[in-house]
Amino acid sequence: MSKAPVIVIHGGAWSIPDDMAEASKVGVKQAARVGYEVLKQGGSAVDAVVAAVKVMEDDPVFDAGIGSVLNAAGDVEMDAVVMDGKTLNAGAVACVQNIQNPVHLARLIMDKTPHVLLVGKGANQFAKEMGLPEVSTETLVTESARESWLRYMEYHDTIGGLFSNRDLQTGCDTVGAVALDQMGNVAFATSTGGITAKRPGRVGDAPIVGSGGYADNEAGAVSTTGHGEAILRTCLAHRITNHMHSGLNADEASRAGLDYMTRRVKGSGGVVVVSTNGDIAANFTTDRMAWASVKDGQVHYGLDPEEHQTEPLYFL
Amino acid sequence: MSKAPVIVIHGGAWSIPDDMAEASKVGVKQAARVGYEVLKQGGSAVDAVVAAVKVMEDDPVFDAGIGSVLNAAGDVEMDAVVMDGKTLNAGAVACVQNIQNPVHLARLIMDKTPHVLLVGKGANQFAKEMGLPEVSTETLVTESARESWLRYMEYHDTIGGLFSNRDLQTGCDTVGAVALDQMGNVAFATSTGGITAKRPGRVGDAPIVGSGGYADNEAGAVSTTGHGEAILRTCLAHRITNHMHSGLNADEASRAGLDYMTRRVKGSGGVVVVSTNGDIAANFTTDRMAWASVKDGQVHYGLDPEEHQTEPLYFL
Repeated sequence: MSKAPVIVIHGGAWSIPDDMAEASKVGVKQAARVGYEVLKQGGSAVDAVVAAVKVMEDDPVFDAGIGSVLNAAGDVEMDAVVMDGKTLNAGAVACVQNIQNPVHLARLIMDKTPHVLLVGKGANQFAKEMGLPEVSTETLVTESARESWLRYMEYHDTIGGLFSNRDLQTGCDTVGAVALDQMGNVAFATSTGGITAKRPGRVGDAPIVGSGGYADNEAGAVSTTGHGEAILRTCLAHRITNHMHSGLNADEASRAGLDYMTRRVKGSGGVVVVSTNGDIAANFTTDRMAWASVKDGQVHYGLDPEEHQTEPLYFL
Repeated sequence: MSKAPVIVIHGGAWSIPDDMAEASKVGVKQAARVGYEVLKQGGSAVDAVVAAVKVMEDDPVFDAGIGSVLNAAGDVEMDAVVMDGKTLNAGAVACVQNIQNPVHLARLIMDKTPHVLLVGKGANQFAKEMGLPEVSTETLVTESARESWLRYMEYHDTIGGLFSNRDLQTGCDTVGAVALDQMGNVAFATSTGGITAKRPGRVGDAPIVGSGGYADNEAGAVSTTGHGEAILRTCLAHRITNHMHSGLNADEASRAGLDYMTRRVKGSGGVVVVSTNGDIAANFTTDRMAWASVKDGQVHYGLDPEEHQTEPLYFL
C-alpha cells in the first residue's frame, strides 16, 4: 500500500522584508526538493524532514543553524525538534550552542537516548559525545544578524524597554517541515535561532513537542512558526492534530487552530500541515510566510497571503 | 456568580515505597489544605496552586525543591510551571539550580516577562534579578536522595547501561496541583527534581505547557506525573483538556488520556484534573499515586488504586 509522498516546508511566519523575500522562496523550494527526493527514494518521513530542515539550517537566509540571531548577551542559542508519527518518538534540543545542525542533534537524542529533551550545557555535552563538530559563534552568525542585533541593542539603550513591546519585526524565521512517506508515516521537524536580543535562556515554542510541532500517524503532522509564546500557550500543533483526529482536513484544522490562537491570546503565526490522507495546508495569520510543498510532481510555493505559485519539480 | 472552590493535589505517580507512603499522604493533604485556604479567602486559582506546590517543594518527602534528586553529575536541576486558565498565561523554568521554590520563579516569569520558558543559566540569571535567594545544593538534597544516587551510580558502574533500562523505581515524585476558584477560573502548577541520575540537561514533561499540565477556562485544568518522556510524546495534559472541551467529564477525560498513553507509547503515569464545572479526578496507571483534594469542606485522599479516604477539613 504505497502512498504518494508529500512534503510541506515553511521558512518562518513574520513580516518578511522585501529584500529577503526572493531568497526565502528559493530556500524553502530547495528544502522541499531535497526532502521530496528522500521520500521518492523510499526514505522515511523522519529522514525527509530532517534533510529538509538541514538545508534551511545551512542557508544563512533563515534564522536556524547558520543565520541564527543573537540573544541579548550576543550569543547564539538554538532550538530544534523532530518527531516520528508512527511511534510518537521525539527528540529535541533547546538553548544549544556552537553546532551547525541542531535538527541533527535532536534526531540523535530521539535515536540514541531514552529522553526527549536536552537543554543547555547538557545538550552540548551530548553533542560532544556523539562526535558532532563544534563550530564557532562567528560561523553561525551572518553580518545581517549582527546588524539586527546592534540596531536592537542601540534602540534598547536609547528607548529602554528590552523584553517588552517586542514586535515580530525583529524576525521569527524559524524553519520547519512535515512529510508523509510511501509507507504512510508522517513526521515533522522544526528548528530556530529564536528572536533577536532574546533573554538568554528564553525558549519559545519551536523545540516543544505539541507546540513547535506534532506528528501522529492517527491524524497527521504539523510544524509551526510565529509568536513563540502564543503558540506555546495554545499548544497549537497538538490542537491542530486533534482537529484532524476529529475529522477536519489539514486546511480546516489549521485554520481552526490559528483562529483559536487569535481569539484567546491575540497571537499570530503560521503552520504547515499534512494529514495521513495526504491533504496539505500552509496557512498563516502573519503578514507573510515563506512556504513550499511538493506533491504529484509539482512544486507549490508562496509568501504573501493568497500567493500560490507552481513550477515543475526539477525546474530551475 | 461565586463558585464552590476546589483543589486537587498529586505528589507523584510511581512505585512509592511503603516507608514513604504515610509521609506522602500527609504531604499532599497539607498542600491541599493550604491551597484550599487561599481559595476560601477569595484568592485566585493561580495563587492557590502556587501556594500548594510551594508546600510540597518545601517538604523533603517529595522530589521537588527540597528533596530533589541528583542528576548523573551529582547536581540538582529542577523544573516547574504554572498556568492561568483565564488568560492562558504561563511561566515555566527548566534545569534551574540553587533556588528553593522553582514554582515561584515560574510565576515570576509569567508575571514579569513576556516569555513562557527560561532554561538553565538564563533562568538562574533571572532568579538573581528578581532577588530570589540562592540556596546551596546541600540545602536541597536530602540524605535519602543522596543514598539513591549513590546506589544508582554504583549499580551503573557495576552493571552498566546508564540511561537505558531505567525503571520508575528510582523515583518520579513530581508534585502538582489544579484548582478552580470562586470566580470560576482554573489553574495548574507542577514542579519536579526529575529522575535520579538523569543525564545533565534532561528535561521531562513537568515544565512543558501541554505535557506537565494545561489550564483553559473553556475546559478545565490538568497536572501530570509519571514517565516524563511518555507524557511529552502524547501531550497528555492538553489531550485531557481537549477531551473535557469535547464534553467528557474530568474522570472520563483523564482515563481516555491515560489509556491513549498506554496504547501508543506503553507509558504509565497519573493526573489530577478539575473541570470548569467543578468535577474532579485523580487517576493513575502506575502502582501508586499520592493525591488529595478538598471539596465541600471535606478532604479526600488516597495512594493505592481504589483507595479513597475522607476526613473533615481541619482534622489533624
